[in-house]
Amino acid sequence: MTPDSWVPVPDNSPFTPHTLPYGVFAPEDGPRRVGVAIGDHVLDLARALGDDTFARPTLNAFLAQGRTRWQQVRADITALLTDAARRPDTEPALHRAADVRMYLPFEAADYVDFYASEHHAANIGRMLRPGQEPLTPQWKHLPIGYHGRAGTLVVSGTEINRPWGQTRPAGTETPSFGPSRKLDIEAEVGFVVGTGTALGTSVGVDDFADHVFGVCLVNDWSARDLQAWEYVPLGPFLAKSFATSVSPWIVPLDALRHARTAPPARTAPLQDYLRDGKDWGLDLSLEIRLNGHLVARPPFTSMYWTPAQMLAHMTVNGASLRTGDFYASGTVSGPGPDQRGSLMELTWNGQEPLTLPDGTTRTFLEDGDEVTISATAPGPDGTRIGFGQVTGRITAGPRTAPADATETR
Amino acid sequence: MTPDSWVPVPDNSPFTPHTLPYGVFAPEDGPRRVGVAIGDHVLDLARALGDDTFARPTLNAFLAQGRTRWQQVRADITALLTDAARRPDTEPALHRAADVRMYLPFEAADYVDFYASEHHAANIGRMLRPGQEPLTPQWKHLPIGYHGRAGTLVVSGTEINRPWGQTRPAGTETPSFGPSRKLDIEAEVGFVVGTGTALGTSVGVDDFADHVFGVCLVNDWSARDLQAWEYVPLGPFLAKSFATSVSPWIVPLDALRHARTAPPARTAPLQDYLRDGKDWGLDLSLEIRLNGHLVARPPFTSMYWTPAQMLAHMTVNGASLRTGDFYASGTVSGPGPDQRGSLMELTWNGQEPLTLPDGTTRTFLEDGDEVTISATAPGPDGTRIGFGQVTGRITAGPRTAPADATETR
Repeated sequence: MTPDSWVPVPDNSPFTPHTLPYGVFAPEDGPRRVGVAIGDHVLDLARALGDDTFARPTLNAFLAQGRTRWQQVRADITALLTDAARRPDTEPALHRAADVRMYLPFEAADYVDFYASEHHAANIGRMLRPGQEPLTPQWKHLPIGYHGRAGTLVVSGTEINRPWGQTRPAGTETPSFGPSRKLDIEAEVGFVVGTGTALGTSVGVDDFADHVFGVCLVNDWSARDLQAWEYVPLGPFLAKSFATSVSPWIVPLDALRHARTAPPARTAPLQDYLRDGKDWGLDLSLEIRLNGHLVARPPFTSMYWTPAQMLAHMTVNGASLRTGDFYASGTVSGPGPDQRGSLMELTWNGQEPLTLPDGTTRTFLEDGDEVTISATAPGPDGTRIGFGQVTGRITAGPRTAPADATETR
Repeated sequence: MTPDSWVPVPDNSPFTPHTLPYGVFAPEDGPRRVGVAIGDHVLDLARALGDDTFARPTLNAFLAQGRTRWQQVRADITALLTDAARRPDTEPALHRAADVRMYLPFEAADYVDFYASEHHAANIGRMLRPGQEPLTPQWKHLPIGYHGRAGTLVVSGTEINRPWGQTRPAGTETPSFGPSRKLDIEAEVGFVVGTGTALGTSVGVDDFADHVFGVCLVNDWSARDLQAWEYVPLGPFLAKSFATSVSPWIVPLDALRHARTAPPARTAPLQDYLRDGKDWGLDLSLEIRLNGHLVARPPFTSMYWTPAQMLAHMTVNGASLRTGDFYASGTVSGPGPDQRGSLMELTWNGQEPLTLPDGTTRTFLEDGDEVTISATAPGPDGTRIGFGQVTGRITAGPRTAPADATETR
């Protein structure tokens, strides 16, 4: 087992010596650089390891170096933080987490969002296509996904401007334009690609860990009213492109050895390229808080498709991967009513408002609302691997053009 | 009018002194750098202007400098190439186009593909949803679009590997896996974003030319059989993510002053943010050649939505723009049967094969087929502005994993 660290780690800290997640931080008046979280501190890797790979504003250079290097660096950091003899040399590279600012940890290449929760897809199907089969015919045969907007990935804590757009309220013939009235969350898990591939090649399900560096939390904010009007036949566009929040700490796959588990039993035969020889289901327990109140506990174990299957499908047509490619699982929803990862499901499209402990009710998000998603996973020796959190607060936003936009048109 | 250039310009050349498109080239054994095409030559801008902005492997640094700078540089280049007194200093910076290799001219940020041709959308609707209204209800109210894969944009001339994937042939219950049997083209026009915007802001229709630098040709290769099985409800994914070909020369908006025209009459009221105060319809005449045979002449004047409206819509929700963002018009199809921009339309989903002058017939693309899309637009004094071409040849491809893939499963 990993010995304790000479850095004090509070009991409630997600960042034990078993986690060692990577992020990009800047000390006051200092440039951005790569750090690793330990307890309430951030270790400046460029300084601690004397390696300029980490004296950069993103993780991308390190991501591109590949799995063997990722494992070596993790071993080096573990040694630094657990060997008391290394404390005198290492301690000057520690910053108090409260004193640094966190940034988006990687420069995103392409962003793909999947739809891998059977419970989520079935709930949405029941709401939008009542009386029909809730899952589309291909759902059990391939992990449905689509490309999102990489340029609007933002780090946790970034304020989220309520998007404006066209909607066509029920019973009306002509669309109206204005701020979204059905602003929702989607609690998801994200996967950061380290090493790329050549055009015309594919990544097999068993090669997942050679390409994916680590895992983080995602809130894929969604404007349900914009989505309903725009999405047929080419899929969601403005309903999701305004912002996607990402947690600042990337947990390396090597920290999740004890979280691996078999996915749910398959109820349809799989093409060979999706037959998962290794168990890449992940036992992550998510929690969603709205203004501090726990509103759902989505279990990632309930996801039908694994991240290894998502990557194999994304590349089976010969599409290449680049360092910094990012893909998310889609909304994580479990079978239980308190395990749903979106307000659309938790309030059944607004028909069953949530009552918060403070007595207020919610269907969708109001200006000023703050949503925080956190997660933990099994670690060694009964410990928990923490992911920290992704949080965002809704603001009416500084709205510029079109200056003459109104809601009443 | 612009005087003639001292550089010889063949009569059939698309690149007169009125065009001056930008690209990225590399001389034999030399690094990539920015050039401008004139006749059969390429001008090395870093050398000719003594400006390191152009001694780079992409146009992005120049794109980020904004419209005033774009106009100044165009004026400087015009002076260099038309003033005979500048010939002695400038001639050493000229390369014969046949001696250089062209590269993707910009580093793509996000890639968005629209669906802006009413004739194309209606044709597809008639084929896929017979008996129903061919256009979806929102089609005349907003330019439908979706995000594509920026990482698989390739420069003209790159071989296109036939994609593999899941399909469900008509009349079968379970999907099969193998090479696409309905590999198609989409003749489109692309727009390169130069200057970005902040999250939470929008670009008005009248600010189009402040953000978009130039225009090029696009072939958005599409696997119709993969698309039919995967695309409900989140849109096309693997059917289009394997490759999108882009012409090597970006024609600046300033070269298209004489190509501007009013879009078709609007048959539905527009939201204010889509009311186009300036005419940004473009009179581009496209030609599609299959193995050298002219098969269609799609007119860009027939596009219902203008590129200014596409940009305004893409950002109206507050989504930010980045230098290098790229968006395409969607398939350009006119009203005539010989004006359709895809084989799916030209052969009515394979029911009416094309017979080529060499006696062979085509429904969709076969291995070895080469598709070339070219275009011209009105220039000053009765001249034509040429875009050059985007070309690609289909290959069965070097296929790696999954090694055990078969078509018979």
